[in-house]
Amino acid sequence: MVCWRQHGKLLLPPAFLHNCKRHLTELGMEQSLKQLIGNTNLRRSKPEDYRKLRDIIAAYGRAKMLGSDIQLTQDEYLANQVIMSEKKKEYEKGIMDPTKFAPGYHIFQVLHKIKKSPLFHILTRMPKGGALKTHDTSMCSTEFLIKLTYKKNLWVCTTNKGCRIEEFRFAKEKPSECKFKDGKWQKMEEIREHRGDENVCKYLQIRFSMFPLSSFTNNAQAWRHFMGIFALLDGLTQFAPVWGEYYYNALKEFYADGVQYVETRSLLPQLYCLDGEKLPIRETVQIYYDQMNRFKKEHPEFIGAKLIYAPLRHVTPEDVGTYVKTCTELNKEFPDFLIGFDLVGQEDVGHPLSMFVEQLIKLPPHINFYFHAGHTNWYGSHTDENLIDAVILGTRRIGHGFALTKHPIIMALVKKLNIALELCPVSNQVLQLGTDYRNHPAATLIAKNIPLIISSGNPSFWRASPLSHDFYMAFLGIAPMNADLKFLKRIAKNSIKYSGVEDEEKAAAMSKWKTKWDKWVKDILENEEEMIPKQAE
Amino acid sequence: MVCWRQHGKLLLPPAFLHNCKRHLTELGMEQSLKQLIGNTNLRRSKPEDYRKLRDIIAAYGRAKMLGSDIQLTQDEYLANQVIMSEKKKEYEKGIMDPTKFAPGYHIFQVLHKIKKSPLFHILTRMPKGGALKTHDTSMCSTEFLIKLTYKKNLWVCTTNKGCRIEEFRFAKEKPSECKFKDGKWQKMEEIREHRGDENVCKYLQIRFSMFPLSSFTNNAQAWRHFMGIFALLDGLTQFAPVWGEYYYNALKEFYADGVQYVETRSLLPQLYCLDGEKLPIRETVQIYYDQMNRFKKEHPEFIGAKLIYAPLRHVTPEDVGTYVKTCTELNKEFPDFLIGFDLVGQEDVGHPLSMFVEQLIKLPPHINFYFHAGHTNWYGSHTDENLIDAVILGTRRIGHGFALTKHPIIMALVKKLNIALELCPVSNQVLQLGTDYRNHPAATLIAKNIPLIISSGNPSFWRASPLSHDFYMAFLGIAPMNADLKFLKRIAKNSIKYSGVEDEEKAAAMSKWKTKWDKWVKDILENEEEMIPKQAE
Repeated sequence: MVCWRQHGKLLLPPAFLHNCKRHLTELGMEQSLKQLIGNTNLRRSKPEDYRKLRDIIAAYGRAKMLGSDIQLTQDEYLANQVIMSEKKKEYEKGIMDPTKFAPGYHIFQVLHKIKKSPLFHILTRMPKGGALKTHDTSMCSTEFLIKLTYKKNLWVCTTNKGCRIEEFRFAKEKPSECKFKDGKWQKMEEIREHRGDENVCKYLQIRFSMFPLSSFTNNAQAWRHFMGIFALLDGLTQFAPVWGEYYYNALKEFYADGVQYVETRSLLPQLYCLDGEKLPIRETVQIYYDQMNRFKKEHPEFIGAKLIYAPLRHVTPEDVGTYVKTCTELNKEFPDFLIGFDLVGQEDVGHPLSMFVEQLIKLPPHINFYFHAGHTNWYGSHTDENLIDAVILGTRRIGHGFALTKHPIIMALVKKLNIALELCPVSNQVLQLGTDYRNHPAATLIAKNIPLIISSGNPSFWRASPLSHDFYMAFLGIAPMNADLKFLKRIAKNSIKYSGVEDEEKAAAMSKWKTKWDKWVKDILENEEEMIPKQAE
Repeated sequence: MVCWRQHGKLLLPPAFLHNCKRHLTELGMEQSLKQLIGNTNLRRSKPEDYRKLRDIIAAYGRAKMLGSDIQLTQDEYLANQVIMSEKKKEYEKGIMDPTKFAPGYHIFQVLHKIKKSPLFHILTRMPKGGALKTHDTSMCSTEFLIKLTYKKNLWVCTTNKGCRIEEFRFAKEKPSECKFKDGKWQKMEEIREHRGDENVCKYLQIRFSMFPLSSFTNNAQAWRHFMGIFALLDGLTQFAPVWGEYYYNALKEFYADGVQYVETRSLLPQLYCLDGEKLPIRETVQIYYDQMNRFKKEHPEFIGAKLIYAPLRHVTPEDVGTYVKTCTELNKEFPDFLIGFDLVGQEDVGHPLSMFVEQLIKLPPHINFYFHAGHTNWYGSHTDENLIDAVILGTRRIGHGFALTKHPIIMALVKKLNIALELCPVSNQVLQLGTDYRNHPAATLIAKNIPLIISSGNPSFWRASPLSHDFYMAFLGIAPMNADLKFLKRIAKNSIKYSGVEDEEKAAAMSKWKTKWDKWVKDILENEEEMIPKQAE
């Protein structure tokens, strides 16, 4: 081993820089760096040597970061300057006065402010590749949901003298049964007439999302509210004709936000018809499939969409056995569309994966697992240890994996086995896992270049854009100040690389994304003024 | 390399468990684990094999954790059961209902609740070794500070028609100059007479701490408030006779909380006398030294105390040059007492270490650096990069190092070079770096067995115990559920191992701590009822 210090003077041989990476990664990083620094400190070296060493160590850090493998083209290099100039403005303003830094706040406090950010504006137009973590009925905007409530034959079950809407139902006749005490069915039109259209809309806006409630006491409470929105939407969205319309619109909204590929985890509920008849589950998948194909036909630049069957986890092992069978059968019928399996619902109150191992390992190996795991801050709990199970069950990606940094061995395995983490920053905040984006544990994952994609989870419920707010918070709030276009490009490419797109289709998918990417880069350079409107104060 | 899988079946040779640690640490952890798990997943193996592998991986995680090197004695093993039973009760109650879990809240919201916790009660009596991060005028309880205000010759400068106290001063005559607009000097007695003793006490309670203000918008704001308390206390504490009394009382309060050794970072201000005369800085150190020796004499089980000269960082390089000289001179006079150097004040608004390198490297190598570094959530900022400078300047410990997990290379160096982190959980929360203790980045440091000590920083300003609240939050909120007496013992031992106690004195210091530790363990077993009072609801 070369000796870097002699008589207290620091030696930096010319070949050193070149060999550094090899030293660090192959010859055992710690050994060589210890050699480099010596056993004590640099107080006897010259300031110039000190600065050289400091630069080298800082460069190492950057070289190991997510995105460091990307080489920018000349155009990208120039566009990067535009992007970084905007990012630095926000960052530096924030250091001077943290009240001006959006990622230091709850998304609900800054939703409107972010819309004025030139950086956000650029990210909105960025071709982001795929949104790999979305959930069936939390994809569309509140505005779209409200539009659905104007449809014919919609009944509403209210309690509290008509003041609280409990359930929706499409039906020719007034539904007879009611699961709520003192619940009364009324036509939606009647409520509108009685309460006034504007009031009803305002009311629904509040009921259809968690906005603006930023101050739950803890994540269990936030989860109760969150699950309540899903329950309220059931009758509205599970009406067979609406289900397809909802999905089509979701693809439309995501596409408009720069997304060319979508993977949706769905409970695959049985849909109902106007006469109350329930359709078999395969029809739910069929509707998804038809709408996806329709959308793809109408938008040739769209790559496609796939489903992950994701029933609720708060069930018995026998139930999971049934789910695994259903998944296997549906996959036979839709082999290139229904491609994976997961269990959803609040991990902390559901059952751990280890309880279902016997059933889970019966899933045919060509159907992938995309497990939620470690979506918790209870270190050492069953939920926390789901990370171990997800990895040794061979999951392809991990939903959230919020607790991963507390498990260095699992983190090393995730990297080695090339398992991607689905990071959903805004979701983590709204569901009260974290508050300030600057403290999100994904910063460590970025530093260690763990495979990562950014998704949104349930943007409908926080009235955020389909994907752009998550990109904004991750890029400005979680990643380091110097994370730039290389970081963004790696994240976008990862979303295709780690998607369920078949290997032989991946090149074509990447090429569809690349066309849009190159155009975006050009647009930044050519239409700078239009791309980056001056920030309104 | 042994092949762990054959025809889809998992093979676990008998020697495997024995070899695991060697495999993981020496032969490259990732390689062997990848081999172990295979390239895809375990779906074709039997559930029993699955569970074996899972247990092995979980055991690895535990084996690498902070404290795993500790072997418990038979008595400790039994005491551990008592401790863990109390810990698990709080943990499990929390998972069921997070509103009952103290580390999920701001310390100010749960200060009273924690006092009823049997676990806290045990930790209060625990011999914790040393408190290595304390600051000169933020060590004593509010009650003690209020007592000081009853002393003779105390003048108070008020503004806002006497409603706001701006400054204290001990003097024979009414001070003539006043730095506050419309400020008026009055005798403290007069204010008491005029406003009522009880009202004045209530008012001072509020002014002398940050309690109960848990809702600052950001950490810059919290810091302004924080620094304001220091400024207010200057006139009260820098009166020469009070300075010594304050320090003696601090040692007394820490000792009562299970602390046998104290290191204090001090600005070393020039103290003043009743006639306004200012003493030279060496007198400040002399007073410290005399009080420490007096305390040691009166408490033979006390190990001792040392000083780290820590002036404010918001200065010019020339100023730092002067500080370094002062430090060198004072160290000559108090070689076994004033042992180190640091720069303090809010890192984000001060200057980075790199600005002072030329001056800092002039400090004689036998005087250690104990730098604050990375006390920020601005990833990629100068403050964040202070971590690099602190390490290559050869710091012995790092104050806070909150951002360390974002710098994997520095983290590896810190471990290799045996630099200890000073973790101050409550301080991080009150100064708004984090909210929920369960998300504190130190969880990763614990998992990776980075050298760690727990200290309190400025407990006076949050009305917490000298050290016990920090131990409680770290043990219950940051460390994993299964962190037990081994963890606590390692942390206590670390506080002597990484202290500034001379190597040849360390065995004696450790022995003083050990005597108390063994007694505490016995007390847990023998006086269980007294040690662990039933929790009042």
